[in-house]
Amino acid sequence: MLNLPRTLEWRDGKLAFIDQTKLPDELVYIVTNDWRRVAEAIKRLEIRGAPAIGVAAAYALALYAYHSREDDAESFLQHLEEVASALKSTRPTAVNLFWAVERVLAAAKASSDAEEARRAVIREAMAIHREDEEANRKIGELGERLISDGDTIITVCNAGSLATSYWGTATAPMYVAKERGKSFRVIALETRPFLQGARLTAWELSRAGIEVVVATDNSIGILAEKERIDLALVGADRITRLGYVANKLGTYPLALVSRVHN
Amino acid sequence: MLNLPRTLEWRDGKLAFIDQTKLPDELVYIVTNDWRRVAEAIKRLEIRGAPAIGVAAAYALALYAYHSREDDAESFLQHLEEVASALKSTRPTAVNLFWAVERVLAAAKASSDAEEARRAVIREAMAIHREDEEANRKIGELGERLISDGDTIITVCNAGSLATSYWGTATAPMYVAKERGKSFRVIALETRPFLQGARLTAWELSRAGIEVVVATDNSIGILAEKERIDLALVGADRITRLGYVANKLGTYPLALVSRVHN
Repeated sequence: MLNLPRTLEWRDGKLAFIDQTKLPDELVYIVTNDWRRVAEAIKRLEIRGAPAIGVAAAYALALYAYHSREDDAESFLQHLEEVASALKSTRPTAVNLFWAVERVLAAAKASSDAEEARRAVIREAMAIHREDEEANRKIGELGERLISDGDTIITVCNAGSLATSYWGTATAPMYVAKERGKSFRVIALETRPFLQGARLTAWELSRAGIEVVVATDNSIGILAEKERIDLALVGADRITRLGYVANKLGTYPLALVSRVHN
Repeated sequence: MLNLPRTLEWRDGKLAFIDQTKLPDELVYIVTNDWRRVAEAIKRLEIRGAPAIGVAAAYALALYAYHSREDDAESFLQHLEEVASALKSTRPTAVNLFWAVERVLAAAKASSDAEEARRAVIREAMAIHREDEEANRKIGELGERLISDGDTIITVCNAGSLATSYWGTATAPMYVAKERGKSFRVIALETRPFLQGARLTAWELSRAGIEVVVATDNSIGILAEKERIDLALVGADRITRLGYVANKLGTYPLALVSRVHN
């Protein structure tokens, strides 16, 4: 087992999540039964990363449903929609948030009474959580083949376990490779202005026992010259059908350097 | 006249220089008659930038010569050489430092007595200072033609007036263009880890009345996409006869992005 903490955990009517603003100095969990606290956490970047935000928003609706005592289905749904729109306003650019909230709402609306709707909301949130972890594990299984023993891998930002429910996207192949006993080294680009690479990626990789060094974003050229970099693994906010990738600042210059040094 | 402070000034037996570690918060001059203080300043990065270090080292020898009371030429030269090797140990990678120190020593050695040697040392240091400023002005005159009214220029690190005796290298064309009434805008890359772009370049350009914004180093890709960047002006630690350029971290990825977006 990897020594990696869970980003979010549903604990029967409560949500526990890592306060990512405290990392890497302290590993602090916030435990709440209030959906408003989860909305706050998304606003304050205590929870960040598109997949993690989606899961958190689904659980925020689940918290509301779990603690609601309404018998009237219509009234419950109306209030749930109010909660949903409050959640949507926390990070209007996070596509996963809208997607997860809509999916949970649809499950509630398909129910015939208030109690069934409440259960559907909780069930759907847990499904979104589980599917996210499974999707990331799958990325890990597929990507792990790209990693050879002794490799040096470079990555930018935190497309890590912390940005998702577990495994991460760009980091998932690294964790699977680590589980399978491969030995490799990771260069985490610092990622100004919020230092997600230095604060988060370096922290979670080293916790999982993976050798990691932090480099400034502007070092990509000299690193490509001086270090033998085998692989650049980065996340993607979106990938188009034609294979175009939209991702965090710094990914594009890294791609250009990687192409020249292929 | 540009509202730009002088990086270093010889004041008849004293050297005044800007403490660059205090910028951009405070503009503090250190005034000393002790060559050891200048050596310290180079070590502490109070004086930085290859040309400025060269001029400072020459003036450190001039301070020694000015305050020396030795009548014996041989003994004076011997002590001067001791000062020279102490200076060389401050920044063993700064080529200008070695060049300037050797040039001043050679002037001293060509003299026939101690008094003449002392004067030669001071004269040579002042010549190095003047020639550096003239060379930078010349860079400005030549480079200014590259700048058109309304341009957006990007630069990295501080190849600015502060890194030289005046005008700077990469910034010289900007200052000459400003003097000639051209209007343009500069994006200064932050330049981690020491932030010379954010702390120094942005400071000196804005002091000179030039519009400047600071961007993180990893923004070069998105800036090339979203802003119309007309020109990248960067310094060069060395340029080979074949036109290869060695320069600060970050220059190479910027060059790759510039090529793709040409």
